[in-house]
Amino acid sequence: MSNESAATAPTRFVDADGVRLAYRRIGAADGVPLLFLQHFTGTMDSWDPSVVDGFAQARPVVLFDNAGVSRSGGTTPDTVDAMADHAVAFVAALGLTRVDLLGFSLGGFVAQVMAARRPDLVRRIILPGTGPEGGEGIDDLGTVVAQARLASPAEPRLYLFFEQTESSQRAGRAFIGRQARRTTDRDPDSTEQTVAAQLTAFVRWGTAPSAQGAARLGSIAQPVLVVNGKHDIVVPTINSYTLFQQLPAARLLLYPDSGHGALFQYAGEFVREGLQFLDY
Amino acid sequence: MSNESAATAPTRFVDADGVRLAYRRIGAADGVPLLFLQHFTGTMDSWDPSVVDGFAQARPVVLFDNAGVSRSGGTTPDTVDAMADHAVAFVAALGLTRVDLLGFSLGGFVAQVMAARRPDLVRRIILPGTGPEGGEGIDDLGTVVAQARLASPAEPRLYLFFEQTESSQRAGRAFIGRQARRTTDRDPDSTEQTVAAQLTAFVRWGTAPSAQGAARLGSIAQPVLVVNGKHDIVVPTINSYTLFQQLPAARLLLYPDSGHGALFQYAGEFVREGLQFLDY
Repeated sequence: MSNESAATAPTRFVDADGVRLAYRRIGAADGVPLLFLQHFTGTMDSWDPSVVDGFAQARPVVLFDNAGVSRSGGTTPDTVDAMADHAVAFVAALGLTRVDLLGFSLGGFVAQVMAARRPDLVRRIILPGTGPEGGEGIDDLGTVVAQARLASPAEPRLYLFFEQTESSQRAGRAFIGRQARRTTDRDPDSTEQTVAAQLTAFVRWGTAPSAQGAARLGSIAQPVLVVNGKHDIVVPTINSYTLFQQLPAARLLLYPDSGHGALFQYAGEFVREGLQFLDY
Repeated sequence: MSNESAATAPTRFVDADGVRLAYRRIGAADGVPLLFLQHFTGTMDSWDPSVVDGFAQARPVVLFDNAGVSRSGGTTPDTVDAMADHAVAFVAALGLTRVDLLGFSLGGFVAQVMAARRPDLVRRIILPGTGPEGGEGIDDLGTVVAQARLASPAEPRLYLFFEQTESSQRAGRAFIGRQARRTTDRDPDSTEQTVAAQLTAFVRWGTAPSAQGAARLGSIAQPVLVVNGKHDIVVPTINSYTLFQQLPAARLLLYPDSGHGALFQYAGEFVREGLQFLDY
């Protein structure tokens, strides 16, 4: 296992409460595994290999496709709560009793629900590019994605994840390039069913009462590292400040000249700071 | 020089544009010196020896008392601009042509002016517990200090710098304890003239037009690390977020369970993260 990388780890399958989920394990055999929770439309191949392999140098990393996504069976649900149900079932199916979470964007919504519901299971949480229920501008996702398809039709993520500066766009192209390292056993793209259901779940999260979000965050006693770029247009950066303020034990790290994908733009620093946080 | 510490470095004096200023040099002989700019009422002995010695392990550190403060000659001015004049003259008097700045609170105001005015001189800046001109609640200093003297008469900094939790207060007492390491050649406390003039300068900074602050910050191209605690009652934490957003090249680091003195409460982490930032 420890010789595998994001580019080479074989895709495996596990039955989680009757749903067959695709996953990959990478990195160290010992230690609390770090479970990656993916963004809107993403598959296991949408992660940055530098981030996956960076964390995997020091601890076990687990990637998976949640229910309905890519090669996983079942149907993608249209609520974050139901996505968290599937993720908890997946962790149990792997026989894991303690995990850390790295929840990016939509994955960060799922991480919040898991952490609040299962303090016995979730030890520490890293939350890049995400926000609380009822957070500012989260319900604009449909508009922002439509803008991205116009502005950057070949690769909307260059618009969605990176700042409109030469340096950030260059980092974005490097990120896209790193994803090509894996040449076989790649995940097929998400289906229209997945995209529609995730969009609904995302917007529902953004339109939930913010008092509900604050109450949930107030119940998450675990240490949290909140991370974002300066100008996140998918989950506006002010939401990261709100997460930090409403979580009882969070630290906040915001990067310059970057957006939603700051964790990829600053992959080296993010991994170093993330590992330091997990080790505190 | 490299064998000296915050507890042992002798106090020296230099003539800076006709004003005799007290200072101490600690740490490595080579590298860009890190100049510490002190908070309201503070002297060279108000720094945390763990922070001073932590930075001094990797680079030259310079402490000083600005004009009128403690053993320094001259009169404490009642504007941040004039304080920056004295600080620039001090740097020149030491023969330094390139410095990094660590400006805490009032010292962070001074650092902003120096960085904007002298991009040739100031390389990188660390700004803990500070805010922009016209920032939120900065003009409340008089009220907050009066509250602190009632709430914590023996040591107002336990109220001003630390959160009202057992863990943060314990960190506060440890910080105060570390300052006792230096037993000789200590700075006398600031005079009433200094306290009154600094209070005026502080409140003036807080009541300046915020557009003026934004314009100044927009002109600071140097990399900046903005740092604060979760609940700063001296320079409310939202000001750190504003600094981050208005500075062209800033990163933001906010700590949990802490206030204005987060840099002392998390001395070890702050030094590590500060040195990483200075070395990028």
